[in-house]
Amino acid sequence: MLDVEQITIVGTGLLGGSIGLGLRAAGYRGRLIGVGRRAQTLDAAIRRGCIDEGSLELEPPLAGGGLVILATPLGAFGDFLQRLAEAGRPLAAITDVGSTKAGVCDLARRILGSTLGPRFIGAHPMAGGEMHGPESARAGLFEHMPCILTPPRSADPQALALVETLWTTLGMRLVRMSAEDHDRTVARISHLPHALAVTLMRLVAREGGLNIASTGFRDTTRIASGDPQIWRDIFTTNRTAVVEALDQFVAELTEFRTALADDDEPSLSRALRDAKAQRDAWTGQRKCSADAPTPRDPACDNSDTAQGAEPQ
Amino acid sequence: MLDVEQITIVGTGLLGGSIGLGLRAAGYRGRLIGVGRRAQTLDAAIRRGCIDEGSLELEPPLAGGGLVILATPLGAFGDFLQRLAEAGRPLAAITDVGSTKAGVCDLARRILGSTLGPRFIGAHPMAGGEMHGPESARAGLFEHMPCILTPPRSADPQALALVETLWTTLGMRLVRMSAEDHDRTVARISHLPHALAVTLMRLVAREGGLNIASTGFRDTTRIASGDPQIWRDIFTTNRTAVVEALDQFVAELTEFRTALADDDEPSLSRALRDAKAQRDAWTGQRKCSADAPTPRDPACDNSDTAQGAEPQ
Repeated sequence: MLDVEQITIVGTGLLGGSIGLGLRAAGYRGRLIGVGRRAQTLDAAIRRGCIDEGSLELEPPLAGGGLVILATPLGAFGDFLQRLAEAGRPLAAITDVGSTKAGVCDLARRILGSTLGPRFIGAHPMAGGEMHGPESARAGLFEHMPCILTPPRSADPQALALVETLWTTLGMRLVRMSAEDHDRTVARISHLPHALAVTLMRLVAREGGLNIASTGFRDTTRIASGDPQIWRDIFTTNRTAVVEALDQFVAELTEFRTALADDDEPSLSRALRDAKAQRDAWTGQRKCSADAPTPRDPACDNSDTAQGAEPQ
Repeated sequence: MLDVEQITIVGTGLLGGSIGLGLRAAGYRGRLIGVGRRAQTLDAAIRRGCIDEGSLELEPPLAGGGLVILATPLGAFGDFLQRLAEAGRPLAAITDVGSTKAGVCDLARRILGSTLGPRFIGAHPMAGGEMHGPESARAGLFEHMPCILTPPRSADPQALALVETLWTTLGMRLVRMSAEDHDRTVARISHLPHALAVTLMRLVAREGGLNIASTGFRDTTRIASGDPQIWRDIFTTNRTAVVEALDQFVAELTEFRTALADDDEPSLSRALRDAKAQRDAWTGQRKCSADAPTPRDPACDNSDTAQGAEPQ
């Protein structure tokens, strides 16, 4: 069980709020303190049971030590890391929920210095949604989803163990990689799809067709409803990797276009068959995975059939 | 009510089978005859209640007249239209479920001649799914979904009325447009998204990241699990419009890439904000639409929240 007397959650929105709810649901009995810029959000988080108490300032809760989780948008990280360094309290560990990692982990090492620096264990819990605010928080948000940890080489072993226990207590499946590998990988599987959804949505809104668009279009564009500010931070903190992924995508799409324009039926058919086989193998694997036995797993909730109605 | 004594469904897969089930569920009492190339599929369709009887040949059922629905993959249409013309029976109307319309409607006019030609009312019911075969058929597949009709200028009024009644009996919302407008529009809202899903799936399968891919990736690639043969027919029969849509998309995506690479934060933020506003307006409109009051509507089933867990 999670052996720490106090957990301070900085930012009590969807992710921060769900961490609190999930910890309570898992039986955590220590203090849960929320830090935020708006009293209204903190009050809502208390009412929903995400935290026990709220603070508009970061410093007072730090006197209690323990574990600190940064769960604000990426743009606010620098400011909070600075205040953590200045407070100089002997925290057990610090982790975060940031969607990009190289910049964040660099920043943490530079700002936090030799004592706290090795206790910063970067994390990216792969969960979330278009909804935001503590009103949307729920205890099971993280269950069976992957959580990527990007600890520094100099990581404090006790801090690392504590952060690992935090995320597994929330039901997550841990995957460890370097911050740079993380950023290149999520650029492909998450940031690129977001750019595609945004671009498709804008193209169709301008050129027409929304009146007959159906489930295929709805699902392909779903993530375009995400928070624009959060996504601006993600794109700008992962610029190089996303630009590289966009270039790879355009090259691959241009091959598809060429096969179609040249009536190269074998290449076109191969592309369609390969993609179906790859996706079916991926969803099949995940359906059978012992790590992900429940419908909360992304590839496991039968939505392929439940949402079967789509245009072609 | 649908005033025709016999309906012949050519192709009793997901779409043809669901038409039969939907008509029965709506109270249709005439004969439902399935035509197919495999006795096994016809038997399965009879067992599921999609049709009353099956025939491996098209000609015998045509003696009963009435309405004929082509529900095979597009590649088989030419052959069946030829046999309809050769049989020379006084059918009330012919319609289809083809996902592209200009080529199909041209073919029908050329092959069917002056009597049957005006009774061919091209249709594209915007429903389907990755599943196939009569085993996947269900009565409610078409409910509240759009059905595009592309009648010829010379359309027989009685045939048109009959085909309109067919699709509204199945619960569909009719939208009329020219075959050319249809093809350009579905290239954007359906065929382009499919090409994007296929390309994204192949890129990530090759470059890595499936082990941490989550719900956003799953939804963006869902349609890539569609039947490769059906999609090859769709792409090749709508080549010009899809290539044009792909070019528009790449131009738009390149603008996004430029804004990101140049750190043009205002343009990047505007793109993210616009897409979210456009999509939220679209799903909101559809949620409030009197035409689409139930969760079967594509933008109306709350899956935005139900599937909220996604990586960023």
